[in-house]
Amino acid sequence: MDLSLEPKNETDSPIAGLVSQFKKLPGVGEKSAQRLAFFILSMSESDVSTFSSELVTTRRSIQYCSHCFSISRQEQCHICLDPSRDLDRLCIVSDPQDVFSIEKTKSFRGVYHVLGGLISPLDGVHPEMLRIPELVARLKKHSYKELILAINSTVEGDATVMYLQSILKSFEVSISKLAHGLPMGADIDYADELTLQKALEGRILL
Amino acid sequence: MDLSLEPKNETDSPIAGLVSQFKKLPGVGEKSAQRLAFFILSMSESDVSTFSSELVTTRRSIQYCSHCFSISRQEQCHICLDPSRDLDRLCIVSDPQDVFSIEKTKSFRGVYHVLGGLISPLDGVHPEMLRIPELVARLKKHSYKELILAINSTVEGDATVMYLQSILKSFEVSISKLAHGLPMGADIDYADELTLQKALEGRILL
Repeated sequence: MDLSLEPKNETDSPIAGLVSQFKKLPGVGEKSAQRLAFFILSMSESDVSTFSSELVTTRRSIQYCSHCFSISRQEQCHICLDPSRDLDRLCIVSDPQDVFSIEKTKSFRGVYHVLGGLISPLDGVHPEMLRIPELVARLKKHSYKELILAINSTVEGDATVMYLQSILKSFEVSISKLAHGLPMGADIDYADELTLQKALEGRILL
Repeated sequence: MDLSLEPKNETDSPIAGLVSQFKKLPGVGEKSAQRLAFFILSMSESDVSTFSSELVTTRRSIQYCSHCFSISRQEQCHICLDPSRDLDRLCIVSDPQDVFSIEKTKSFRGVYHVLGGLISPLDGVHPEMLRIPELVARLKKHSYKELILAINSTVEGDATVMYLQSILKSFEVSISKLAHGLPMGADIDYADELTLQKALEGRILL
């Protein structure tokens, strides 16, 4: 009934444009977008222009590493260029985000291969659309000691792991995947059944 | 021990600059900042540049309305310029955000006065630093039928309301404040004691 009022109100508000830009970001609803917009108004003009130019320059300068397909500012990423990395251990992930999460643990010193997604026929993502041919090419060129599949345990993740296992079995390489179990500090009472089941199945002898 | 690694890692990451910009926003921690930065990479270059320029132009073009001190793109805000508003009802709020929240309810058609903060001697905010002289000047110029104090019920808010009551009593105007009680849809079992007490005190005869 009152629908005609909404857009009018929207254009009338002096921060409507900025609010609608913030609302495009993931996890940002109307309320948060408004709070962020008001925060921008409270920042100095120079801070806002630094933020604004960082957005544009980062977006423009980022490319995919020609070797591992993670994100990079140069043709090859800083991990592939790092001479101290263990070139015999390859960690296979779906997205560049996962590289950053694993790097933060500081417990993997090997190199990465980013698939650029997961197999999902329902969403029209087939194996040939991922960086799987490039992975096979890397395996043919270099004999790795270990491949670590660091892939989420979802329907798409499990399908991708199964597909990778089938095409990787022709290579002489040990393949591992991440352990499932209770998160650190978690309470057994509050763990979901599947997690608890995985924690039991993967129990470690003391 | 390992502290020296952190900054090195930060500069190595191709999105570190953007992540640190996002971390300055309220409610955005390391993880969310990273997620937002990766989202920016997934946007088209033109969308990012629209976002970026909206930030700068909004920050630059916003000023305070000369009349009510809410935010505005012109010298006077769209509410003060709207001829359909009831000029006899004045809603007094602490911040421009509150104007937007009340406008969303579509149940107030009067005009506003934004104090620009709340009295807080501990934070060095004294009455003369708020737009209270301007409020008194408005009251002297125009005889309002009602003043609505839409001010948070915090220590600072209550102090401001008390101060306003003391200086407003010389004017012939009815003063009201927002009702306290159970939020809509709330469960009595889960309400905090103070809210339930206010709901009881403010009970409405049927």
